[in-house]
Amino acid sequence: MSVLQIGAGGVGWVIAHKCAQNNDVFGDMTIASRTLSKCEKIITSIKGRNNLKDSSKSINAVKVDADDVAALVTLINQVQPDLVINAGPPWVNVAIMEACVQTKTAYLDTSVATDLCSPGQQVPEAYDPQWAFADRFKEAGITGILGAGFDPGVVSVFATYAHKHLFDEIDSIDVMDVNAGDHGQKFATNFDPETNMLEIQGDSFYYEDKQWHQVPCHSRMMEFDFPVVGKQKVYSMAHDEVRSMAEYIPAKRIEFWMGFSDSYLNYFNVMRTIGLLSTEPVTTCDGITVEPLKVLKAILPDPTSLAPGYTGKTCIGTWLRGKKDGAAKSVFIYNICDHKASYNEVEHQAISYTTGVPAITAALLYFQGKWSDKGLFNVEQLNPDHFLDLMPTIGLTWEVVELPAE
Amino acid sequence: MSVLQIGAGGVGWVIAHKCAQNNDVFGDMTIASRTLSKCEKIITSIKGRNNLKDSSKSINAVKVDADDVAALVTLINQVQPDLVINAGPPWVNVAIMEACVQTKTAYLDTSVATDLCSPGQQVPEAYDPQWAFADRFKEAGITGILGAGFDPGVVSVFATYAHKHLFDEIDSIDVMDVNAGDHGQKFATNFDPETNMLEIQGDSFYYEDKQWHQVPCHSRMMEFDFPVVGKQKVYSMAHDEVRSMAEYIPAKRIEFWMGFSDSYLNYFNVMRTIGLLSTEPVTTCDGITVEPLKVLKAILPDPTSLAPGYTGKTCIGTWLRGKKDGAAKSVFIYNICDHKASYNEVEHQAISYTTGVPAITAALLYFQGKWSDKGLFNVEQLNPDHFLDLMPTIGLTWEVVELPAE
Repeated sequence: MSVLQIGAGGVGWVIAHKCAQNNDVFGDMTIASRTLSKCEKIITSIKGRNNLKDSSKSINAVKVDADDVAALVTLINQVQPDLVINAGPPWVNVAIMEACVQTKTAYLDTSVATDLCSPGQQVPEAYDPQWAFADRFKEAGITGILGAGFDPGVVSVFATYAHKHLFDEIDSIDVMDVNAGDHGQKFATNFDPETNMLEIQGDSFYYEDKQWHQVPCHSRMMEFDFPVVGKQKVYSMAHDEVRSMAEYIPAKRIEFWMGFSDSYLNYFNVMRTIGLLSTEPVTTCDGITVEPLKVLKAILPDPTSLAPGYTGKTCIGTWLRGKKDGAAKSVFIYNICDHKASYNEVEHQAISYTTGVPAITAALLYFQGKWSDKGLFNVEQLNPDHFLDLMPTIGLTWEVVELPAE
Repeated sequence: MSVLQIGAGGVGWVIAHKCAQNNDVFGDMTIASRTLSKCEKIITSIKGRNNLKDSSKSINAVKVDADDVAALVTLINQVQPDLVINAGPPWVNVAIMEACVQTKTAYLDTSVATDLCSPGQQVPEAYDPQWAFADRFKEAGITGILGAGFDPGVVSVFATYAHKHLFDEIDSIDVMDVNAGDHGQKFATNFDPETNMLEIQGDSFYYEDKQWHQVPCHSRMMEFDFPVVGKQKVYSMAHDEVRSMAEYIPAKRIEFWMGFSDSYLNYFNVMRTIGLLSTEPVTTCDGITVEPLKVLKAILPDPTSLAPGYTGKTCIGTWLRGKKDGAAKSVFIYNICDHKASYNEVEHQAISYTTGVPAITAALLYFQGKWSDKGLFNVEQLNPDHFLDLMPTIGLTWEVVELPAE
């Protein structure tokens, strides 16, 4: 057996550690990235943390340009993996899927190909470039699993589970994502500042009464009392899983909410007002032409530098309201993840950890033949019980709490 | 008669208009700048506003590099002015003074040569490079007038006047500068963003009990109830006139305070925390090396673009406390200047207007033989009564208000 992982950022870091912890199942591992040193650093970390379970299996670093289908095909033909795990940035998804179809190799990713921030590329059309592969995956006789991170990913598994076991009728699905951690910096982003800032300033899309509603960022807010981390302000945002849930789970309203502290939003609003979040190049008095957002990225702390000192917890879950046996019902299904504990185990913080663990859970289900039908699937289409049984053994627990049904 | 003005920024703009309004005294005018088009724009504005009083006198634009002493000497020899008015940035003062000494030409400026923001160049030493010219001005038989703007400038004339007429003993001199105007932008600077941000993040210096005290920016704050513009928060800051007043006016404490709104300081603090106010170059992921502060300058509104829509007023004055005839006394001597009225008259806002009018007041006093002793003088050394009699006729009124003496 063998797997090929493409991408060596924060999520790739955790996926590799978790893959190595289960390499008795996965077999030989190859980690590929545009930057070879990032792959090598991950391998050093895995060995340093004693996370390579079966030392008779190999773990290798290779360089690849994930935009280049021909290069990917060559690499896949060399490695001959049973599964390609895409841990790269969203914009490489389509190239990697193309290479998997051409080589008849199973595929798994953790986020949607579409840049949700650019005009004309929005939530309603988010999955179109990837869903266009559906027939070709079936014809090639291969499995493709889309959006198997936490959000997208586990939050949809929670909703699928609730739809199957807990509700007769669903009024609303609210995905709730809050990072109540503290990285000790007055301001920093938890992943690439450029991607983060583009995502945050984009319009939000929510699905209600079978229609898409587009609203400006931060225009819909609510306060939610999260388990463990307490009351937090959350804001409606564009996010991949709203699209796939709207396709596969019947509900009157589906929406994604992310927590931002008042301080974070203040920084964001100042930076946006002065024009620092713009991708439109400006020319300085010295005649240097540069994108303001790229300058912001250069001056903010490198997100990976934050992990060692990170404390506190994330709480991500799915809040469902509807009816069961004629009575109103409200439940919150969630995970709590601790930054420090994540770092101690795999040398990365909880935000990467919560994305990496579900990807490996899904990959194991594929290897176990439980999520391995031929064709292209979002996680909402797959059996949630298998997933929720397995995930706690890979590193993320989950809870269901009944809330007062207003 | 003729004058040579060097510098064509906001202050130069107003100086040129006011000079033109009095060109029956000043004679032929030459405006020089590194950027010829800026001089030409000012001349167009002067003619458009009908501010050239005596149309038989000439007004010319010329290009000069004010850093280049030889070029300045050549220009002065060509123009043969009776007075050089330095309206350039602070760092050209020394070069222009050198050229004036070499050509035996009278000199006047509105701010100190020293960059108050750079380490090692601070308020206690602020005037050293210019005071070093004292003997040479006397030997050359020429007049030099330093710091004849509003602050520095008029605020010291107020203090000199109070010392002469209103107090037997002065406990404290607080220069109070507030711009209660509104330029309609959420954030913008009123003059060059680079100079402004460097000035604001520098340490403050105040003079007390014959000693200099250095404190971090914004660490000393008070609320002051200004005439007309009302209660405003002001913060202790490094400013030129604290140095010259400490030299020439006996007082137990001398300090400069500038008003900042909470919103302005919030923008400032966010920008400083993320590193955007740094002059240390950074390299973007695209390999472009750039100073963050220069990028800020490129994205913020051009300060000159703010003038047309500016509303509201500035209030700048000198608050003195001490004793007269054995009784405690507290007075505030101040000017109120209206942005819109300034713009209507000279096509620039009140911040430039309040600096340009005093310079021309001082220049007129020089031409009238009232401020024309041979040697180098700060305004504290010159007769305040002549100045305060004349200034209202040039465009700025002043008031004395008695405050409760605590």
